[in-house]
Amino acid sequence: MKKIEHIGIAVKDLDASNDLFAALFGKSHYKIEAVESEGVRTSFFEAGPNKIELLEATSADSPIAKFIEKKGEGIHHIAFAVDDIEAEIERLSKEGFIVLNKTPKKGADNKLVAFLHPKSTNGVLIELCQEIKS
Amino acid sequence: MKKIEHIGIAVKDLDASNDLFAALFGKSHYKIEAVESEGVRTSFFEAGPNKIELLEATSADSPIAKFIEKKGEGIHHIAFAVDDIEAEIERLSKEGFIVLNKTPKKGADNKLVAFLHPKSTNGVLIELCQEIKS
Repeated sequence: MKKIEHIGIAVKDLDASNDLFAALFGKSHYKIEAVESEGVRTSFFEAGPNKIELLEATSADSPIAKFIEKKGEGIHHIAFAVDDIEAEIERLSKEGFIVLNKTPKKGADNKLVAFLHPKSTNGVLIELCQEIKS
Repeated sequence: MKKIEHIGIAVKDLDASNDLFAALFGKSHYKIEAVESEGVRTSFFEAGPNKIELLEATSADSPIAKFIEKKGEGIHHIAFAVDDIEAEIERLSKEGFIVLNKTPKKGADNKLVAFLHPKSTNGVLIELCQEIKS
């Protein structure tokens, strides 16, 4: 785990939350990106070496819609940057963590991602992410 | 906001969670610290430029005990490093954020800290923290 790559925050209204976080950080988001496979529209803010990703559901069956329905708006996941996501998935599986997708999938922001089930990590949804080299 | 200084995670049993996060990160916590005024015992893990702070309640009326009772274990707050906490408190108050303590208080890890109410920040408890210069 090289660093916290980003923190994902579930929001109801991306445009309103972009304004709110722009006031918080004193600067605007630097990009908006939709991830259709996950049913989300995202925006990114920079905080030094880290990012904040706001996530808005684009369909009623999006994991973000379900999260907000159950828990309300708030922190959804922590993503850690890794160098070799496949090696980390193997290592963490052996340690007893529940890896939700053992084959990394394409996420937002040009990343390969995998998630650990919160049941195995003190209630924290953890994402591993590795930059896709072009 | 220079970076994510740390993420605070509420846990029921600090010793058990230290083992769990040591397996996750592939290395142990680097310190344990009690903050009596907050009714917590904390441990810290390093993730590159960022930290993970585990928080265990040491009394039934600790904010962490109340958090776990209401929401279960999980992410409790995000802390951002700032250079001048008093200036940030003033700026954010003017922007309409609800600052829970307008006078910074002494937190764990040699920091002056202030919190923003989650009502004003999309359900996210945000801590500002500034290193105390000796």
